[in-house]
Amino acid sequence: MREVGIIGAGMVPFGKYPQRTLAEIAWPAVKAALEDANVPKRDIGAAYCGTALGGMMSGQRILKTLGITGLPIVNIENACSSSSTAFREAWISVAAGIYDVVLVIGVEKLTKFGGGTLPLEKEDFEVAHGLVMPALYAMRAQRYMHEYGLTENHLAKVSVKARAHGQYNPDAQMRETTTVEAVKSSRLVADPLRLFHCCPSGDGAAAVVICAADKLAHYGGVPIRVIGSEINSGKYMTGFRDMTSPEITLRGAAQLYEESGIGPSDIDLAEVHDAFSIAELLYYEALGFCNKGEAGRMIDQEETFVGGKIPVNPSGGLLSKGHPIGATGVAQIVEVVRQLRGHCGSRQVEGAKVGMTHCTGGGISGFDHGVCSIHLFAR
Amino acid sequence: MREVGIIGAGMVPFGKYPQRTLAEIAWPAVKAALEDANVPKRDIGAAYCGTALGGMMSGQRILKTLGITGLPIVNIENACSSSSTAFREAWISVAAGIYDVVLVIGVEKLTKFGGGTLPLEKEDFEVAHGLVMPALYAMRAQRYMHEYGLTENHLAKVSVKARAHGQYNPDAQMRETTTVEAVKSSRLVADPLRLFHCCPSGDGAAAVVICAADKLAHYGGVPIRVIGSEINSGKYMTGFRDMTSPEITLRGAAQLYEESGIGPSDIDLAEVHDAFSIAELLYYEALGFCNKGEAGRMIDQEETFVGGKIPVNPSGGLLSKGHPIGATGVAQIVEVVRQLRGHCGSRQVEGAKVGMTHCTGGGISGFDHGVCSIHLFAR
Repeated sequence: MREVGIIGAGMVPFGKYPQRTLAEIAWPAVKAALEDANVPKRDIGAAYCGTALGGMMSGQRILKTLGITGLPIVNIENACSSSSTAFREAWISVAAGIYDVVLVIGVEKLTKFGGGTLPLEKEDFEVAHGLVMPALYAMRAQRYMHEYGLTENHLAKVSVKARAHGQYNPDAQMRETTTVEAVKSSRLVADPLRLFHCCPSGDGAAAVVICAADKLAHYGGVPIRVIGSEINSGKYMTGFRDMTSPEITLRGAAQLYEESGIGPSDIDLAEVHDAFSIAELLYYEALGFCNKGEAGRMIDQEETFVGGKIPVNPSGGLLSKGHPIGATGVAQIVEVVRQLRGHCGSRQVEGAKVGMTHCTGGGISGFDHGVCSIHLFAR
Repeated sequence: MREVGIIGAGMVPFGKYPQRTLAEIAWPAVKAALEDANVPKRDIGAAYCGTALGGMMSGQRILKTLGITGLPIVNIENACSSSSTAFREAWISVAAGIYDVVLVIGVEKLTKFGGGTLPLEKEDFEVAHGLVMPALYAMRAQRYMHEYGLTENHLAKVSVKARAHGQYNPDAQMRETTTVEAVKSSRLVADPLRLFHCCPSGDGAAAVVICAADKLAHYGGVPIRVIGSEINSGKYMTGFRDMTSPEITLRGAAQLYEESGIGPSDIDLAEVHDAFSIAELLYYEALGFCNKGEAGRMIDQEETFVGGKIPVNPSGGLLSKGHPIGATGVAQIVEVVRQLRGHCGSRQVEGAKVGMTHCTGGGISGFDHGVCSIHLFAR
C-alpha cells in the first residue's frame, strides 16, 4: 500500500440552483480542484463520483462537460456518505497502485425534488411508517434531553456556532449569524427540533484530487496526507437500544483510532455530520471528544468553537454550509484541506496539523443500517 | 497486489417480480453464493452492491434482510455496468489487502418502472431528443448492414442462438427456442430491430464471493481465478465517427489483452453484452473474435454457438436471460464460474479453461460516454 496525498481541492458555494443541470453544478468544482492540483486532464487515472440521487452516470455526465473522457469512472451511492465512500474507494485504488492520480467528486441537486426532506426509499419499513430523518433525530434529542438534562439552549448553541463559523465561509449556504433566541423561536419541525436545528436543503458539488506519494514530485505543492480511512454500516440489534449513542460512529471511530494510532486528543479540528444540532452533540461523545453526557457542557463552554479546545465544523457544518447529500463528504474534506493549509482566514484553526472528517447517515432505518465513513488527514 | 479467486456464485432466475421488494429479490442470490462459498456471515469483510436504479442504500437493505450488518457496504452505479464495476472495486479491495473475503451483489427491479425501455436521464441532450437505447442500436444496425452487407437473417440468428442456449439455463427469463422466421415476424421496435432483437426487461439478482488467494485454504473448493480486469468510459470525439465500431469495447479489450497477456484465441467462452442482437455482432469484432466485417459470417457459420469455435453467451445472454440492468454484470460472472467448473449440463462449453465477461452500456449519449468493464477468469 502506497502513501496517498490530496493535492487539489475545490467546491462551489452550496445553494439552490434549480436552473442548472447536475453537470453544470459540478464542473466548476472539478475545474477548481484540478487547477489547484496543477494536474493536466491527461494525467487523471480515474474518477470516483459520489452522489445519492444524481441519477445514472453522474460522473460521466459531469466529466464530459469538461472534455475529460475515456478514463475509468465509478459512481458511488451511500446516502449521506456517498462521496466520503467515493473518497475511500479512490484512496484504496491509489494506495493499491491501480492508478496514480484520481479525481473524487461529490455532487447533488436536491432542488429537482422540490425541497423538503429528502426522498427516502418507500420500500423501507420505518420510512413507510413515518420515520423520516427529522423525526428520527427528534426522538434522539428527546431521549438525550431526558437522560442527560440537555436543554433547548444547549441545542440552540450548536446552530449558533454553525452560523458563527459559516459567516466566514464564502461557500456556505447560510451566512447570517443567529442567536439562541432566534433558533428557539424558529418554526417547529419535529419537537424539539426547530427549523434552525435542521440543515438546509440545496444543491452543490465539491472535488479533490489525490495522488500517490511517489508521484507527487510531478505536481509540486505540499500534499495533505491521508492518515486514516474507515467505513462501516450499522449493526442490526433486537430489543431496546440506546438512542443517545450513535453505535456506528462509536464503533467506526474506535476502529479508526486503533488502526491509525491517532487519538481524539491528537485532532486539531473535525468536520462532523451535523445534519441536525442534536447529531453534532451525539458525535462529540461517539468520537471521543468528551465523555458520555458531557456534550451539553462542551458546547456551553464553547470548546468546539474556533479558538476552543477542539473546533468542530469550522466550515459552518451542514447546518450553515448546507447539505446536498452526495456533495457533503468531499466538501468536508475540502474544508480540512483548506484548514491544514492555513487558508481559512477568519475561521482558521490556528496551527492545525491533524483534521478529521466524519460523514454518516443512511436514508432508511436510521437506527440499524446507516453508513459511516471517517477519515483522518495531516499536513 | 494479491491473487484473487471467486469461491461462491449464485443467482435468482431473472423474471418479473413486481410484488417483491428489491431486498426480497436479492437475498436468495446472496444466500446461494455464500452457501456455495462455504463462507459464514462473520467472515465477510465487505460488500459491494451494483445497481443502476435500486435506490438509496440498496446493499444495506438487502443484507439487513439476511442479518448481515456492521460491515463496510458500498453501492455502485454505472448504468448497465453497475455490478461489473462493483466486481472490479471488490477485486481491487481484496487484491490490495484491505479485505480478505468480499461479497459482490448485482440487483435490479425494473418492474417498478412499469416496463418498456429503461428510464434514462432527461438532462442528457441526446436522450431528451429521442436517442433512447433501441433507437441508438437501430442506427448502428442500419449502418452496419449498409457497410458490410449484413442481412436480417444474420441479425435474427443471434436471437436464435440466444434462445437455443437459454433453453438450458434455468435462470433465464426466455426459455423457449425461436426461429429466424419468428424473429423476423416479431413486432418492429426501431427499424431494423424487432422485439426479439431486444433483451427483455425484468428483475433479478446475482452474487459472488471473492477471496484472497492466501486465505483460500479456510474454505476449501477450487477457486475461479480473476486474471484480468478493465474498466473504461467512452471517449468524446467530434466530427463523424464509425457507428459500427464500439470504440470503448475496442479500446478496453486492447488494454486488457495487453495487461493480462491473454489474447482472443485463448478464450474458451465469453459472456458479452447482447442487449440487442446487433450489439453482439459488433462485439465479436471489437473483442477480436473475428476481423472487421466478419461478424455476419461468424454467426452464420455458428462459430459462437456452444460447440463452435468460441461460444458466446452460453447462458443465453441478455437476449434470453433478461437484462435487469444492475444484476447483469455479476450474472455474467456467475455463468462463467459455472462454465469453468463444468456445471452447465446441456449448455456446457467442453473443457472450458478461460472465460470472459464483457459488460458495457451507459444510459445516455451512447456514442460518447458509456462505460465498459471486461474481466477474464481462469480455473
